[in-house]
Amino acid sequence: MKAEDAIEQSLELVENSRVALVGTIGEDGYPYIKAMFNAKHKDFEIWFSTNTSSKRVSQIEKNHKVSVYFVDMEKIKGLMLLGIMEIKKDHKSRKMLWEDGDERYYPLGVDDPDYTVLHFHPELGNFYYRLQNVIFSIK
Amino acid sequence: MKAEDAIEQSLELVENSRVALVGTIGEDGYPYIKAMFNAKHKDFEIWFSTNTSSKRVSQIEKNHKVSVYFVDMEKIKGLMLLGIMEIKKDHKSRKMLWEDGDERYYPLGVDDPDYTVLHFHPELGNFYYRLQNVIFSIK
Repeated sequence: MKAEDAIEQSLELVENSRVALVGTIGEDGYPYIKAMFNAKHKDFEIWFSTNTSSKRVSQIEKNHKVSVYFVDMEKIKGLMLLGIMEIKKDHKSRKMLWEDGDERYYPLGVDDPDYTVLHFHPELGNFYYRLQNVIFSIK
Repeated sequence: MKAEDAIEQSLELVENSRVALVGTIGEDGYPYIKAMFNAKHKDFEIWFSTNTSSKRVSQIEKNHKVSVYFVDMEKIKGLMLLGIMEIKKDHKSRKMLWEDGDERYYPLGVDDPDYTVLHFHPELGNFYYRLQNVIFSIK
């Protein structure tokens, strides 16, 4: 598989995935995984929203190195992105991701202190399909 | 949600998942994620097979702390298991997992040096469904 094919298929996978798996490192030294909604993306740059009080946020505060994984479970087609997760709490970032109905999770609205935006900055991609791995750097 | 309900639903999720996401820690300090076939399980004890030469195996040799994640992407129901991954290369373990057709991946058969069995020993479970997290220890 050529690198450009892998990148094209990777972008398609991100585009078609409602959910990503986010990997973080816990204070206990274990790699953690959590399913999160792919709230917004621009190529391989991804935005998520989560509870400020969540374990995930405190792990990322201590260690910004994360992975974001997209997978087609039927075809066993996977894309692992490695990069840095930035925690954003400014009004503009909140407003950008906020959707009608999010009050269900954050009753105080877009400026609810428990509402946090995570902004993933990708550095490296690893696309896997049919026994082939293609690694590509991003930017 | 009661702990016993969470454990029951967690066991069902493992039972119904052909694929698990395995989290490891790379030498670069990033958490890695990879989709792997749920080859065999006994409650929350899971066995996988993989290439001895894979990055995954060298990461596990250096750091046995892993996570194994099962997810229902439609229902956003997730189970994260934390525990220790043991690398097995003995004939008995290989034979136990080997299935007809595996020659496709390991042409030298059950004793192919590139065939490795991974045996996951769970310690803790974290079941998530409908905004509820239930953490339970295993054994």
